[in-house]
Amino acid sequence: MDGKEFRVKGKEVVDYIVDYLETIRERRVFPDKKPGYIKDQIPDSAPIDGEKWDDIFKDVESIVMPGVTHWQSPHMHAYFPALNSYPSMLGEMLTNAINCLGFTWASSPACTELEMVVMNWLGKMIGLPEEFLHRKGGSGGGVIQATSECTLISLLAGRYVAIKMYTDLFPDATKHEINGKLVAYCSDQAHSSVEKAALIGLVTLRYIETDENFSMRGQDLLKAVKEDRENGLIPFWVCATLGTTGSCSFDNLEEITEVCYKELLWCHVDAAYAGSAFICPEFRVWLKGIKKADSIAFNPSKWLMVHFDCTAMVKNSSALHGAFNVNPLYLTHEYSGLAIDYMHWQIPLSKRFRSLKLWFVIRNYGITGLQEHIRKGVLLAEKFESLIRRDCRFEIPAKRYLGLVVFRLVGDNVITETLWKKLNSRGRIHCVPASLKGKYVIRFTVTSPRTTLDDIVADWKEIVRVTDEVLREREQVYSRSKVPLGETKEKNENFGTSLLLSNSPMSPRIVNGSFAAVYDQGDVLADFSRILRLRKDAQDSPAMRRRIRGILMSGKQFSLDSRLDLFHGIEPVFDKSDDRKLGNLPVVEDSNENEDKSSSPSGKELFGLQNQSKWSKIVYLYSRGCFLLLLPYNFLENNFDAYAETLEPRIRSKSVDHDMEPLTIKNCLEVKTVCSKCGHLVNGRVHEGEN
Amino acid sequence: MDGKEFRVKGKEVVDYIVDYLETIRERRVFPDKKPGYIKDQIPDSAPIDGEKWDDIFKDVESIVMPGVTHWQSPHMHAYFPALNSYPSMLGEMLTNAINCLGFTWASSPACTELEMVVMNWLGKMIGLPEEFLHRKGGSGGGVIQATSECTLISLLAGRYVAIKMYTDLFPDATKHEINGKLVAYCSDQAHSSVEKAALIGLVTLRYIETDENFSMRGQDLLKAVKEDRENGLIPFWVCATLGTTGSCSFDNLEEITEVCYKELLWCHVDAAYAGSAFICPEFRVWLKGIKKADSIAFNPSKWLMVHFDCTAMVKNSSALHGAFNVNPLYLTHEYSGLAIDYMHWQIPLSKRFRSLKLWFVIRNYGITGLQEHIRKGVLLAEKFESLIRRDCRFEIPAKRYLGLVVFRLVGDNVITETLWKKLNSRGRIHCVPASLKGKYVIRFTVTSPRTTLDDIVADWKEIVRVTDEVLREREQVYSRSKVPLGETKEKNENFGTSLLLSNSPMSPRIVNGSFAAVYDQGDVLADFSRILRLRKDAQDSPAMRRRIRGILMSGKQFSLDSRLDLFHGIEPVFDKSDDRKLGNLPVVEDSNENEDKSSSPSGKELFGLQNQSKWSKIVYLYSRGCFLLLLPYNFLENNFDAYAETLEPRIRSKSVDHDMEPLTIKNCLEVKTVCSKCGHLVNGRVHEGEN
Repeated sequence: MDGKEFRVKGKEVVDYIVDYLETIRERRVFPDKKPGYIKDQIPDSAPIDGEKWDDIFKDVESIVMPGVTHWQSPHMHAYFPALNSYPSMLGEMLTNAINCLGFTWASSPACTELEMVVMNWLGKMIGLPEEFLHRKGGSGGGVIQATSECTLISLLAGRYVAIKMYTDLFPDATKHEINGKLVAYCSDQAHSSVEKAALIGLVTLRYIETDENFSMRGQDLLKAVKEDRENGLIPFWVCATLGTTGSCSFDNLEEITEVCYKELLWCHVDAAYAGSAFICPEFRVWLKGIKKADSIAFNPSKWLMVHFDCTAMVKNSSALHGAFNVNPLYLTHEYSGLAIDYMHWQIPLSKRFRSLKLWFVIRNYGITGLQEHIRKGVLLAEKFESLIRRDCRFEIPAKRYLGLVVFRLVGDNVITETLWKKLNSRGRIHCVPASLKGKYVIRFTVTSPRTTLDDIVADWKEIVRVTDEVLREREQVYSRSKVPLGETKEKNENFGTSLLLSNSPMSPRIVNGSFAAVYDQGDVLADFSRILRLRKDAQDSPAMRRRIRGILMSGKQFSLDSRLDLFHGIEPVFDKSDDRKLGNLPVVEDSNENEDKSSSPSGKELFGLQNQSKWSKIVYLYSRGCFLLLLPYNFLENNFDAYAETLEPRIRSKSVDHDMEPLTIKNCLEVKTVCSKCGHLVNGRVHEGEN
Repeated sequence: MDGKEFRVKGKEVVDYIVDYLETIRERRVFPDKKPGYIKDQIPDSAPIDGEKWDDIFKDVESIVMPGVTHWQSPHMHAYFPALNSYPSMLGEMLTNAINCLGFTWASSPACTELEMVVMNWLGKMIGLPEEFLHRKGGSGGGVIQATSECTLISLLAGRYVAIKMYTDLFPDATKHEINGKLVAYCSDQAHSSVEKAALIGLVTLRYIETDENFSMRGQDLLKAVKEDRENGLIPFWVCATLGTTGSCSFDNLEEITEVCYKELLWCHVDAAYAGSAFICPEFRVWLKGIKKADSIAFNPSKWLMVHFDCTAMVKNSSALHGAFNVNPLYLTHEYSGLAIDYMHWQIPLSKRFRSLKLWFVIRNYGITGLQEHIRKGVLLAEKFESLIRRDCRFEIPAKRYLGLVVFRLVGDNVITETLWKKLNSRGRIHCVPASLKGKYVIRFTVTSPRTTLDDIVADWKEIVRVTDEVLREREQVYSRSKVPLGETKEKNENFGTSLLLSNSPMSPRIVNGSFAAVYDQGDVLADFSRILRLRKDAQDSPAMRRRIRGILMSGKQFSLDSRLDLFHGIEPVFDKSDDRKLGNLPVVEDSNENEDKSSSPSGKELFGLQNQSKWSKIVYLYSRGCFLLLLPYNFLENNFDAYAETLEPRIRSKSVDHDMEPLTIKNCLEVKTVCSKCGHLVNGRVHEGEN
């Protein structure tokens, strides 16, 4: 394609974009596609010869769009907003035409300089103190990151400071010894990016239980910090969340920064969604205490109509650079605040010219225009809340903050979950659920600037319609004590083994890839974890006990991955097996469902956890340190041989000497397990003598 | 701006983009702006009310463009290419209009699925084995990352595998103890992202000296690995570079993967630039051995005309996910290869719909069109090489590979450096230098698909013109033994203290922010480091010795930051001071320039390193573990009080009890130093008795 053709085709795409966005209300917000749907429509290899643009472009509507979740739709209420706007798109068009890389000032001066100016604008717009701005001779300033890697960058900065400080205090200790003692803190409502950051930084993460408003409080943080210090650990970093993923609750920043200040902890503020709202002074009440924080991050790409990716990270300390081996002293030169090299502020070397779109959006809307947009979103959420409150079948178990309403049907979690699944599968509105202190809720976020009051009312009517249906079917739901595999497949033909959905704002669950994020079979883990207790050797380990206690703390929407970690230190209470020596396969049964036993002659009693009728059944195989598997029971029973194939070793391992015979079940008393370290199959009788 | 206005303005921007790109040849490729140039043209705060688009848009040409380094220009020969193309821009226009986030399959199925298909296309296009592709039941597959964070992700994956394996072998060891023993390897020509990754992963990085072709060889790697094992360390990860930043040299992948395979090391292949060339079968000779590698990354955003950011990371092992706490077993479900959640493949949670632009580019050009583009670039580089070779004043000290020619003027480094500076300051062509085993070279990369043979000839003529001038002035260059501050300022009014330019493909240097990447005053460190030796206590530490030996290894373009690290373990050989107890301020003098002494009554002898006339003078203050400063001498002498102000503590420190009196020099025998841990000033006489 040459310039001449682009003049024509580019303008056609401009028209297509307007058509798409202005009629997006009419599209199904959530697609009804199955995994692999694109694969079947596209050749398996790239074309040898070039294709005409028109042939390529028509595939956008026929192949791509049917599988798109339409985040710009007024009926999109899932996650948090991810909005675009016309000036933002114009900005990016220019960015891509220029396509300069901004790793150093010299690599394209305008790229660095505009970002600094616009970050100052943004910092002032949300009411940050002067220390956070780019100033000559100052050590503060903002940078645009892609998204949640801000948490990691902040944690690495805190780790750098801590290791330096403690290396000085304890010259005999290696940095790895110090690193091994570092403890980071966040609320039990914090985003999964904190867990990921701690994992990469190899530091212990402690979850602080939130109060009744899902808010982390200073005294609870302080208590944990002191306890850790008494145990010889080194508290070093705290992530305070302003606007949690689950319910948009706010940690008490004033109390937390005070603790951090006194206890010499780096305080990072994660205001991903709520940060944009701080452009309205009335919402800045939650920012109190920010002066003592070390860094703050929020996403204009969420609520400020600057399209993804655009996350503002603003810092108050030159130590950020230290994390990437740049001595802060060298940054306080006579042009500090003028000529900086952004490559020292981020993980990758290069960066895009992202400030252009932000600059255009702020200028085109002006502060008042953006404030109006935020306030309108909050107003519509208030309206939705009032509609919910008028219907006594619903309850709102957490205070509404900003544009996020969480609601549920009064009664058991399963009713709300059923409602949620039906809503999503109809595709007229799209929400995601969350678990708040054990309560299953549906999150309803007002996202789009296109959303009108009529849209909200229409969404409400859809919810009422589906609720009527769900409650009519309620008896049926309760009476369905067993889901035959056939029916499972009918409900969701893709239901299979599990993939983890650790980062979405949902309760942990067994899922069929992310597909099951919407259609999965229920939260088996929530029930399951109630019957767990610490394994004996774990009970003897204070570190393990603390870790598990932290993770198990009520209400935390921690990932399934984290939960699975627990199993290394956990065993079921209802273990019927006595041969603990061999005991690689404890048996777990839910005592409520003994009636199933008769219909399962082949050892269902041995393997099966049949929990309350509302849950799928699962099988739980556990060989200490070696293998952990949670599966819907029916699936396993019917597909074990098929599944076994998928367990063949795939990770190349060269040092572990295992029997490589493939997994089979000859009878239910002999099982082979898989080494989690290398994927090898380990031969052996892991349980016997039951029945 | 509403849809109606965007229809008009969007089309205007389309025209602007074509005008910009089609006439880019006429623009000055490298801007002549000074740090802070934008700040003075833009209000310090965001506008209260929205502005009209036309008012915003005119600032693009008047404010932004004058500060842009035009990466799309045919006269851009710096760094590596970062190209765009019209179909790529159309792809991103749609991406931004849709603006969906692709963290899970369900968050927008098309986003995940298209990326999987296009990554398979790309993997096949460059000749990767089947194991690297997304396949049902397989553990390979590609993902689009932003850019150099691929190195970190791969290192974290390797670290995860190693820690798991060694925790098993040594159950008593903590993961931090194991982490403390991990050693990563790369060539002395590897990209700085490897250093950054090791820093974040807290692992030791060992540089392997390359052979005469700047290639890392298997036997040298094996030797280092064995040595480390003998010393109780744990080799775990190797980064092989295909196409180094300095000279586009190639590590011997076949030998290296063989070593990795036998020694159980994760082998990551960094083919950032050269990877694109592998779409031409004739260049795949360097890929031999890839089958045994664990991961490979290359940037279609460099040479394949897919604009930044777009880095293909393709892996051969499910362990990648383990790094982010996802048990690989859970990924081998019945839809593995169909429904995946890309959030487990990267550091941030969310990702953009980047496959759309890649899909459009590959389809619009076809494999043959892209091959043609690569081959044309290589051909033009060959042409440039032949022009250079015809002029006996030049030499080509490293073999040309692909589109990168490195050349220099025969003779001292300083002549080439002078040439380079003059070339850049004229703004007609833009190059960056590199240091290859001590030789200063200018890198000339053919980047743009717009580059014609005429452009290359014009660039060559410009080089000849400037060379004539430089050689005419050569005597003058040599005779300038002292650069008075006035003259320094005249040459570069922004010259000041140092900021580090660690990641650009240049020799380490004292620079004035990145601005000085182009105009700085010479490579003082290269000379300076020759007179350094290990400090006594460092000599006693095998770990420190190993580290420093590794860093000091010849030829490595390591960052100034790394070099500065050395100073904690280094002292100058020509230390005249005997009071080593107090000896916080060793004195270094270049013996060649004693004639300056008379003109510096205030202790220049005490502080000054006056090295060969071609270098600026520097002052070197050193207080053990506390303060290190390298500055052009003249600047310091004349600006010490001004500079002192910038040294006031900025990092909040709560535990270190220092005297807070500001830094002054009453006489040259009393100096205060700054604690690098907290930025506090430390009172004290750090040196006395000299003279």
